Amino acid sequence: MFVLVNLKTYPCDPLEIATAVRDVDETTDARLAVAPQAIHIERVAETGVETWAQHVDPIEHGSNTGHTLAESVADAGAVGTLVNHSERRLKLADIDGAVRAAERADLETVVCANNPEQIGAGAALGPDAVAVEPPELIGTGTPVSQADPGVVENAVVAAENVDDDVSVLCGAGISTGEDVTAADDLGTEGVLLASGVAKADNPRAALDDLVEPL
Amino acid sequence: MFVLVNLKTYPCDPLEIATAVRDVDETTDARLAVAPQAIHIERVAETGVETWAQHVDPIEHGSNTGHTLAESVADAGAVGTLVNHSERRLKLADIDGAVRAAERADLETVVCANNPEQIGAGAALGPDAVAVEPPELIGTGTPVSQADPGVVENAVVAAENVDDDVSVLCGAGISTGEDVTAADDLGTEGVLLASGVAKADNPRAALDDLVEPL
Amino acid sequence: MFVLVNLKTYPCDPLEIATAVRDVDETTDARLAVAPQAIHIERVAETGVETWAQHVDPIEHGSNTGHTLAESVADAGAVGTLVNHSERRLKLADIDGAVRAAERADLETVVCANNPEQIGAGAALGPDAVAVEPPELIGTGTPVSQADPGVVENAVVAAENVDDDVSVLCGAGISTGEDVTAADDLGTEGVLLASGVAKADNPRAALDDLVEPL
Amino acid sequence: MFVLVNLKTYPCDPLEIATAVRDVDETTDARLAVAPQAIHIERVAETGVETWAQHVDPIEHGSNTGHTLAESVADAGAVGTLVNHSERRLKLADIDGAVRAAERADLETVVCANNPEQIGAGAALGPDAVAVEPPELIGTGTPVSQADPGVVENAVVAAENVDDDVSVLCGAGISTGEDVTAADDLGTEGVLLASGVAKADNPRAALDDLVEPL
Repeated sequence: MFVLVNLKTYPCDPLEIATAVRDVDETTDARLAVAPQAIHIERVAETGVETWAQHVDPIEHGSNTGHTLAESVADAGAVGTLVNHSERRLKLADIDGAVRAAERADLETVVCANNPEQIGAGAALGPDAVAVEPPELIGTGTPVSQADPGVVENAVVAAENVDDDVSVLCGAGISTGEDVTAADDLGTEGVLLASGVAKADNPRAALDDLVEPL
Repeated sequence: MFVLVNLKTYPCDPLEIATAVRDVDETTDARLAVAPQAIHIERVAETGVETWAQHVDPIEHGSNTGHTLAESVADAGAVGTLVNHSERRLKLADIDGAVRAAERADLETVVCANNPEQIGAGAALGPDAVAVEPPELIGTGTPVSQADPGVVENAVVAAENVDDDVSVLCGAGISTGEDVTAADDLGTEGVLLASGVAKADNPRAALDDLVEPL
Repeated sequence: MFVLVNLKTYPCDPLEIATAVRDVDETTDARLAVAPQAIHIERVAETGVETWAQHVDPIEHGSNTGHTLAESVADAGAVGTLVNHSERRLKLADIDGAVRAAERADLETVVCANNPEQIGAGAALGPDAVAVEPPELIGTGTPVSQADPGVVENAVVAAENVDDDVSVLCGAGISTGEDVTAADDLGTEGVLLASGVAKADNPRAALDDLVEPL
Repeated sequence: MFVLVNLKTYPCDPLEIATAVRDVDETTDARLAVAPQAIHIERVAETGVETWAQHVDPIEHGSNTGHTLAESVADAGAVGTLVNHSERRLKLADIDGAVRAAERADLETVVCANNPEQIGAGAALGPDAVAVEPPELIGTGTPVSQADPGVVENAVVAAENVDDDVSVLCGAGISTGEDVTAADDLGTEGVLLASGVAKADNPRAALDDLVEPL
């Protein structure tokens, strides 16, 4: 299982969480990574943790003031990027452009979407993975795998139907090892989570709990 | 073949073109329709021509000032709508929402996209059809079927691969009967066109030429 | 006082409300108008009521699929348009473009904004009027003039400071004659309202009540 | 005069240019600063150069995946930020929100706009400065002060009329000391420039030339 911890713009210490993710990664067969704010990528990557971006723009080098360039993300040490997170939704043509930009910079890609139809659409763009995150569950602590397991199962089917090389991750409400196991049982290959670790009193303990069943 | 004439916001007389489309439709086995500005839908539909919207928003009845409601479009006499035209690109979640809104109002849907990957994505959302329109060819008079036949063939394959109930249309640069024949030969079930008719000195003659080979 | 009834995409009968607005307008010194969906403008205008658009795009005649053209709005019988309503927010450059497009088509303009700073910004673009509508009050039934009279007074000052030819209207939560009087007392020259009339069991009675003190 | 060098997403070495800007700053009474990509802010700031962001989002700490947080920008060492650059245009309400976010983080703000009307609007939002940059001149090498001096003079008047505490900068096409002098003569207090330095064969020499007349 792949466990990707999205730090959003939470008021957490990105280096403290990065270090915890790195250390827990060494204790488990699971693959752990952290997605800090773009401005923190370089320092987070220097801890040795697997580092992801939260977003890249569908651009190349050039006149793009205020944008996030995939090449710069990769140069700073990231190995992958989220695209189209529900808090940073893009036009269809721009998701395509962002996935192409990420490929050009050798970044792995996870295209986020809200339901099985959109997961199929995301998979058709050829990312490495898609992540199904019903927006109404994000940040609630109720895992999608428990609130609505059908949406996860249907997302897995939708992605397979389009391109069975595209992995499916599951997000929204994941905070315990039990949630990760449930996501695994529903056929996904990983989870996205955020507040369950980033807002935990003890991020290290939260991560230990998450990977305990794996 | 389905021939959909998009009037955009051209300075043409929508009723004159609607009447021509209606009259030529009666002379051919092809299916002809016209997509006027929303504000003209009701009067255009009253001519008896098959009428489409250029866009609907991903909304329901409610507090949506300045939006286009699928139900109002249907009540005014339209039977279908474009979604995500390259001049009115939407976020992925909003294309999904617009297709769902159109279905709710019994409108047919054509999701537009720029390349085979995005065509696959559009098809995954379950519209009635997708239309491939490379933006660099729109309005040029060079038909996509001639400038880049591979993109059309690949779009047909991409849509079939995702959902073979979704028809593929071909847009950009179509203006002659030869272009329509070429689009047919490449495996599409129709064409989108705009300036070739809407800006023609004699729209009726342009339409006659378009359907002549069909 | 100017009383502009925004029908949004409410499930109301636009002609019934238009007729009521027209009839009540004849009973009062106040100026009443109605802003239906674009697709209803022509039929609403044919009732003889003063008709407004809810939005126009910053475009001219041309390749603008799915957009609302100021010239078409004016041809259909509208005499003015809202711009940048909180349910249809625009980029600053596009508010400027929409106001210019409306001027070109001889439409009056009301630029909506949320607070005194943005009201000043809207006034700087040279519309006929600005309307202050704190988004948190829209549709609540609590009038801005009562919940937060300071924001209205400051909006009046902000607009005057920039350009004292620009009128100030007041929206959000207006539903009674008392609210209209309060808005008048705070220095505004009119009100925007929506659900108070469009969702009323008896729109005519609601309108009579609104203009009763004027 | 304030000279702000925007590195956009050009394929330049941000540290090389930062160092040149810092060194030239010490040779002149002018105030020089550089605006790198967000991901480079921390390393650029460590050179000791005055560092700006190209954009901040209208957000606070929280669930804002893929956004740029003013606090993070300030913590990384930036002292100011551009807002609403023509390559990163924002909705009016979001320009207001971004200026407020920047103030909260003690960042200086320059709101960019295209013409005197929009400059007045930007000034009404209370930033530290506004910058007038006609988009058709950006990157052309033809300075706005030469191509269209009236737009600069009118921008100065428009900003003064709204709030004479707001400085006016001038962008687009600036590349020589002569351009800077012309901008000064037109009443501005600084210039934005980009390719003239960032794409120069010798950025240091380009900077020396820029500040030579000051």
